[in-house]
Amino acid sequence: MSVARARIHALDTYDIRFPTSREHDGSDAMNPDPDYSAAYVVLRADGLDAAGRPLAGHGFAFTIGRGNEVQVAAIEALRAHVLGRDVDELCADPGSVSRALIGDSQLRWLGPEKGVMQMAIGAVVNAVWDLAGKRAGKPVWQLLADAEPEWLVGQIDFRYIADALTPDEALALLRAGREGAAERAALLREHGYPAYTTSPGWLGYSDEKLTRLAKQAVADGFTQIKLKVGADLSDDVRRFRAARAAVGPDLRIAVDANQRWNVPEAIEWVNALSEFEPYWIEEPTSPDDILGHAAVRRGVAPVKVATGEHVQNRIVFKQLLQAGAIDILQIDSARVAGVNENLAILLLAAKFGVPVCPHAGGVGLCELVQHLSMFDYVALTGTTEDRVIEYVDHLHEHFVDPVRMGAGAYLAPEAPGFSARMHDASIATYRYPDGTFWVEDLRQHEGV
Amino acid sequence: MSVARARIHALDTYDIRFPTSREHDGSDAMNPDPDYSAAYVVLRADGLDAAGRPLAGHGFAFTIGRGNEVQVAAIEALRAHVLGRDVDELCADPGSVSRALIGDSQLRWLGPEKGVMQMAIGAVVNAVWDLAGKRAGKPVWQLLADAEPEWLVGQIDFRYIADALTPDEALALLRAGREGAAERAALLREHGYPAYTTSPGWLGYSDEKLTRLAKQAVADGFTQIKLKVGADLSDDVRRFRAARAAVGPDLRIAVDANQRWNVPEAIEWVNALSEFEPYWIEEPTSPDDILGHAAVRRGVAPVKVATGEHVQNRIVFKQLLQAGAIDILQIDSARVAGVNENLAILLLAAKFGVPVCPHAGGVGLCELVQHLSMFDYVALTGTTEDRVIEYVDHLHEHFVDPVRMGAGAYLAPEAPGFSARMHDASIATYRYPDGTFWVEDLRQHEGV
Repeated sequence: MSVARARIHALDTYDIRFPTSREHDGSDAMNPDPDYSAAYVVLRADGLDAAGRPLAGHGFAFTIGRGNEVQVAAIEALRAHVLGRDVDELCADPGSVSRALIGDSQLRWLGPEKGVMQMAIGAVVNAVWDLAGKRAGKPVWQLLADAEPEWLVGQIDFRYIADALTPDEALALLRAGREGAAERAALLREHGYPAYTTSPGWLGYSDEKLTRLAKQAVADGFTQIKLKVGADLSDDVRRFRAARAAVGPDLRIAVDANQRWNVPEAIEWVNALSEFEPYWIEEPTSPDDILGHAAVRRGVAPVKVATGEHVQNRIVFKQLLQAGAIDILQIDSARVAGVNENLAILLLAAKFGVPVCPHAGGVGLCELVQHLSMFDYVALTGTTEDRVIEYVDHLHEHFVDPVRMGAGAYLAPEAPGFSARMHDASIATYRYPDGTFWVEDLRQHEGV
Repeated sequence: MSVARARIHALDTYDIRFPTSREHDGSDAMNPDPDYSAAYVVLRADGLDAAGRPLAGHGFAFTIGRGNEVQVAAIEALRAHVLGRDVDELCADPGSVSRALIGDSQLRWLGPEKGVMQMAIGAVVNAVWDLAGKRAGKPVWQLLADAEPEWLVGQIDFRYIADALTPDEALALLRAGREGAAERAALLREHGYPAYTTSPGWLGYSDEKLTRLAKQAVADGFTQIKLKVGADLSDDVRRFRAARAAVGPDLRIAVDANQRWNVPEAIEWVNALSEFEPYWIEEPTSPDDILGHAAVRRGVAPVKVATGEHVQNRIVFKQLLQAGAIDILQIDSARVAGVNENLAILLLAAKFGVPVCPHAGGVGLCELVQHLSMFDYVALTGTTEDRVIEYVDHLHEHFVDPVRMGAGAYLAPEAPGFSARMHDASIATYRYPDGTFWVEDLRQHEGV
């Protein structure tokens, strides 16, 4: 059968940039002017998918503008590891790609397991999972939830985490997670997975816009919103007061400092906001500062400490859990080395009993990460209690299978794959610097 | 005066690769076949240096082959921050470049402060220090040792480390370090700074070669050597026995696992080698695993724990010190964000009383890092006790001001600058893929 011998015949990359800085979308205390971007990769395979389109796996790294070309170069450096790979073998064992990419001894020097190379690996590994979902005719959350626990354990790299989580412990967690999975899958399809929204809280928005969007969030059924803080304390007090007035006393309001503070400053600032009852403080300080997060957590309780969108790998997450440094673990679909590493992180969180509330937004991060939380609910922890996925309502229109929201919840994706594919028209428009938008933009700036 | 208005008019990059894998130079348990490489950068300034050559600052990131082009792309992404800068202002405050590069909010997303972007920043910042040394007519170690403590404190970014080291504490350390500095500078010029050698211990070398090189190390006056370990325990026992027999009972033999192990495995393996009295175990596990290093240290005492060549920034070093995870701190000249961040790390080590024994080798790492240890001796800690700089005796011939060795010691550089400049002929030969060596190599492999 010819399909059985299908191979990956191309790895194509695209530098996609959206001019989001012009509306202050995504602005926070550390990122005043992000241009949300994607280093986008397509693994082109022989044969057709179920819809009769050329079979392909899609993935990306998310960046915020400048340097997206460096991220693209890093993905290009991985080409030799996937070109010519047998598609069936690849889909039967995405972990084989993950191991090959992480294990490349020369490329490893550029991390190891962090920064630009780590995100590049994540993009390619996630593209393989997208391909695997399409081949199996299942959305990735379901592919994972249906998989045998033994197979899932085989997808995980236990190097550097075996002192906190052994393969046997992981297997036991996954076996326990299967009990009642079919019922939970049905509930998920009916109600979706809870979300919170960051849309009201960008630092660059006026108080009026904040108030209007906060009220809209309540009307849309969200039970939690998030505000960016950390640039100016008196501004934060004023904005938090406006938000609290808009949503009432009961709705959870998280705050996010985007790594703005030193440890003592973090404690002082959060305590100065305590009258408005922040639910969690996110990224109070450097994502590398495990002991610092532990100190902040002791200093701001009962406000919870959350972090993870810039945590580079399972090894740092392991320590955040070992040190009792966080109340909320925030996975990101495109920061670490893809689905395989996120499986390890979900299992670590389950072992330590810490809820996972994913980071999302950016370009396509909502589309990807929903699959991981839904797997976690259906076939690992079995609960959505105190768990919410971040939701930001922009740029979804560029995706072929965009997230679908119910009342404050992500509805379960039904299309096969990882929801990672962008529209061809979006690529043609926002490819940098030669997409039609950027060509026109340059023309206008040059006054031609 | 025209010199006073000199500006940086070009940032040029070069992808330089040496075919070191063919001799197993540099082979260890995680890096079996490195091709030592440099992403090399030249900041070209208006005017001439003291020798009448066009004024320029040289810097580089060290990689081990594949992906060097990604590293070059990352340096290219920094161009806008240095092009057109006033050379006098730049040399008067290299920290201004350091802050601009680390603070670029869009590029920051690609780290933050780690991986490819961090090394790119290090390359450019070090090139600025090279330029500053040339303008001042001093080697960088002397430029630093002569600088006012207040100015040095102003060169340091205390963000994320102020909970462990305040600017006032740094100032006090630097002021105390100046006492007797002139006498120590004279001693340094006479005797040099102690070194140890890794040349005998590469994993790919035969026992015969190991024995021969270990004896040579003793003859050359080294009081410490290092062996790579971690691939196979019985091999390690045999090689360690041969090394101990070659050098006698008193010479210090350090071992280096290059991140090969999980925590429990590290403890077991090191204890299995204890009969040969390893002096330190280097990189027993992931460089990100602060708590893991602390556990290893408790498990292998009195063998010392050393790490740092892959530690990404001052924040991780801070925690290694706070957690009591290391006995020896190993700075690397080209892994973190350049001289400015290494000043912070040297001060943290001084505050915690932990000796610094730099990582070197690679391409030009010996040339750079000697300046930092010599500054530390002359004007910060004032001692070389239990301190040695790693030395590996290859690739120095490609540098215009190569390291000069006395009896087991680095002799103090005398040429102005950071010893970072490569010979034009070396660049023309080993530039990848269009240098004469690589063109000829390709021709031979294609059998033309």
